[in-house]
Amino acid sequence: MLKLYHAEPLANSLKALIPLKEKGLAFESVYVDLHKFEQHEPWFVAINPEGQVPVLDHDGTIITQSSVINEYLEDAFPDAPPLRPADPVGKARMRIWNKFIDEHVMNYVSIHGWHRMVGVIARSIEAGQFEQLVARIPLHEQREKWKTARSGFSPADLANATRKIEVAVDKVEQQLRQTPYLAGDQFTLAVINFLSHCALALERMFPEMNVKVRAPRLVEWIGRVTARPGVKAALAMPDRTNPALRTFSGEVR
Amino acid sequence: MLKLYHAEPLANSLKALIPLKEKGLAFESVYVDLHKFEQHEPWFVAINPEGQVPVLDHDGTIITQSSVINEYLEDAFPDAPPLRPADPVGKARMRIWNKFIDEHVMNYVSIHGWHRMVGVIARSIEAGQFEQLVARIPLHEQREKWKTARSGFSPADLANATRKIEVAVDKVEQQLRQTPYLAGDQFTLAVINFLSHCALALERMFPEMNVKVRAPRLVEWIGRVTARPGVKAALAMPDRTNPALRTFSGEVR
Repeated sequence: MLKLYHAEPLANSLKALIPLKEKGLAFESVYVDLHKFEQHEPWFVAINPEGQVPVLDHDGTIITQSSVINEYLEDAFPDAPPLRPADPVGKARMRIWNKFIDEHVMNYVSIHGWHRMVGVIARSIEAGQFEQLVARIPLHEQREKWKTARSGFSPADLANATRKIEVAVDKVEQQLRQTPYLAGDQFTLAVINFLSHCALALERMFPEMNVKVRAPRLVEWIGRVTARPGVKAALAMPDRTNPALRTFSGEVR
Repeated sequence: MLKLYHAEPLANSLKALIPLKEKGLAFESVYVDLHKFEQHEPWFVAINPEGQVPVLDHDGTIITQSSVINEYLEDAFPDAPPLRPADPVGKARMRIWNKFIDEHVMNYVSIHGWHRMVGVIARSIEAGQFEQLVARIPLHEQREKWKTARSGFSPADLANATRKIEVAVDKVEQQLRQTPYLAGDQFTLAVINFLSHCALALERMFPEMNVKVRAPRLVEWIGRVTARPGVKAALAMPDRTNPALRTFSGEVR
């Protein structure tokens, strides 16, 4: 019995939803409402002490961290359609991409998302209540990120984040000149990682990057990848983002 | 035919040397002299465009990134003694630790190492020559780190790094109350990761942390782990660190 605790189908949550759908694994979906800070409530912290989605519950065993969850699904369900190359070199190529996306891409797209969306939420909370909400966040880094979102990320941090994303976009575009996906000719966890954390946000969040001109292969690849039934099914999961925020400057959903 | 490009047996290089020794895999050792900046020379950048050690060459196939190299050795040599749990849950537990060490420990010990050792090297180079050396470093992040090492890391960055290391030490100590290694009762890649990037440096670099009192299980664990023949053999690899730096305040090797 599989259960996934997740939020909207984007970023980390989308990254764990796609493999479940692509592999055709039946699972119970448990929606965690980030707008109500449910991820920091005692019932959820009892499941994941770090207070973060997604979380996989497999027959009572808890697995956290989307990159780890996705490798786990490959190991635990070897008979479902694989999303990891069978050969050792292919696995290594996939993991180098995953490591790059986890360490040099994810957090930088996130900074812009937090600056635009979470900042609006954070500033809408009264001072006393905000301190209370922050105090119950388990991870030091997340507490700091909430405080920074409220006061605003510095122009230098935002510019550095944009630079990191541009490096990633150019790196992926260059790779797609050589191979149809990322780490070879297969749809893998690395594809899912980059799609969920960066590719889908590019045109909406960074129109000035002019990705259609800058990275035409990447744009074609997004179309090809999002046409897959499993990816479509994951993207069709409910999106309960506050409508006022979804349309905020047209840049966030 | 296996070949490992590496530097002294500590940090990243030690992390890749230990599995080769533990698994009993014959390999050619190629020493890359970081004191002479060989990792940024054209011959090495032709092998690893990122200009970093360690690098594994397996019959001409190049694998980079120590965490990826180590999983690769598990995948490519399934008949050698395993350093990764056989069951999916064990693998996930190991990978959660590896991700924590890669993202929340490694770089923070490194900041202190760079502040004390690489800073001395960086400041000993004349201005014009320093700019030339930095200009040929492939990774933006590494260029910035060299410049910061020369000017000195800020007290805030050093204090934050110390805090991160203390969190990690306490987390490991707590885990060792429950399991004999880290991710269960097996010597795994997570053990090797924490040993190489943090545990071995604690008493030497952070005497004020008083690790013997703060984390007695961790100290016992270090003794147990470093008594293994494979770990001993890796630690016995040549150390050509500049003697003037090795004794620098007695804190770095």
